[in-house]
Amino acid sequence: MDISDIQEKLRNFSRERDWDQYHSPKNLAMALAAEAGELLEIYQWLTEQESNNPDDKIRKQTSEELADILIYIIKMADKLNIDLVDSVNNKIAINEKKYPKEKAKGSAKKYTEL
Amino acid sequence: MDISDIQEKLRNFSRERDWDQYHSPKNLAMALAAEAGELLEIYQWLTEQESNNPDDKIRKQTSEELADILIYIIKMADKLNIDLVDSVNNKIAINEKKYPKEKAKGSAKKYTEL
Amino acid sequence: MDISDIQEKLRNFSRERDWDQYHSPKNLAMALAAEAGELLEIYQWLTEQESNNPDDKIRKQTSEELADILIYIIKMADKLNIDLVDSVNNKIAINEKKYPKEKAKGSAKKYTEL
Amino acid sequence: MDISDIQEKLRNFSRERDWDQYHSPKNLAMALAAEAGELLEIYQWLTEQESNNPDDKIRKQTSEELADILIYIIKMADKLNIDLVDSVNNKIAINEKKYPKEKAKGSAKKYTEL
Repeated sequence: MDISDIQEKLRNFSRERDWDQYHSPKNLAMALAAEAGELLEIYQWLTEQESNNPDDKIRKQTSEELADILIYIIKMADKLNIDLVDSVNNKIAINEKKYPKEKAKGSAKKYTEL
Repeated sequence: MDISDIQEKLRNFSRERDWDQYHSPKNLAMALAAEAGELLEIYQWLTEQESNNPDDKIRKQTSEELADILIYIIKMADKLNIDLVDSVNNKIAINEKKYPKEKAKGSAKKYTEL
Repeated sequence: MDISDIQEKLRNFSRERDWDQYHSPKNLAMALAAEAGELLEIYQWLTEQESNNPDDKIRKQTSEELADILIYIIKMADKLNIDLVDSVNNKIAINEKKYPKEKAKGSAKKYTEL
Repeated sequence: MDISDIQEKLRNFSRERDWDQYHSPKNLAMALAAEAGELLEIYQWLTEQESNNPDDKIRKQTSEELADILIYIIKMADKLNIDLVDSVNNKIAINEKKYPKEKAKGSAKKYTEL
């Protein structure tokens, strides 16, 4: 995924519509969370088992909501000069330390309670 | 961003901790939305202007929350065999049609109300 | 529950701390959704069955998060002069129509798909 | 607001539609957070000032979303035998201690940083 390329596309999209005035990080955070709400709506009444074997409709809806959320992540990172590849790699490294294999094995506990 | 590479890392991370049992798409959607809530918390009392000029602490917190959300997106796409690059490109194309430049210019209205 | 009485308490609480400047409906919506994220966090890795039989700790955490969310609802209704009893009764009446017993029986479908 | 009365109504509503099977606390938490996402959507592109002076349409949409969220709170409290009046009063008392007037005055900082 070429993030700079998508950011360029999104910048053009906003510029052509004069939408930058709406895209403060505060507003983008709200829009991202609203899309996360739409993702929840897809799965709220499904069992976990059903969610593990979704039909094509659910898969398509999920694909669209994940795209919406990802677009806002990429947009927000652009606004704040955040390098998403660095962020993700750092976070995985942090999680490796927070959840050592031996202690975290098979447990859903938060790291503060391991 | 090499998504397959991150997916491979995340698969190993879960396998080593025996966490796959928790990672149904339903649960991942919940975890993603919970992280979106943490992103909101950073910005809830800031003005838009303040959010446009965040200090280093806010920028760092944002970077971590965006990473958390992005990790769940990448994990969920892996579980459901969703190609995120396709999803994002499709979604941008959909948005181009939903929000034609002339009609959407300077407006924050939803496409259903343009 | 005496909503006016709680609203009076919350108004005093904010006045004494000079917090009204932060309590725009936009910001209250964000704070409410951030608390909803904390509620999700409690349940994200539990099975439905486990959530049906929560231990005291989970019950206590839930009680606190529901209170946080309810406080923001009551605060927001106060700001916008919304009568919550009317709102709830209206909504139940709307739902009765949207989901007629015969059609909705045993189905988790959205009203638009019944 | 007579919460027991609303809980009785909601219990009948679910029983008549055979919906109890869907109403685990886990699922109700998801549905509540999804509604919180719809509340965010109303305010995401508005300025704080605009949100302080909403037109009738926004006020009506807000009233409906607050009702949706409140209904899920009341439903969840019923499932878990939580007394919402106690919860709210306890929480206000906790907040009084977390945010002492002198220290919190005019500050949007979290209690952990005061």
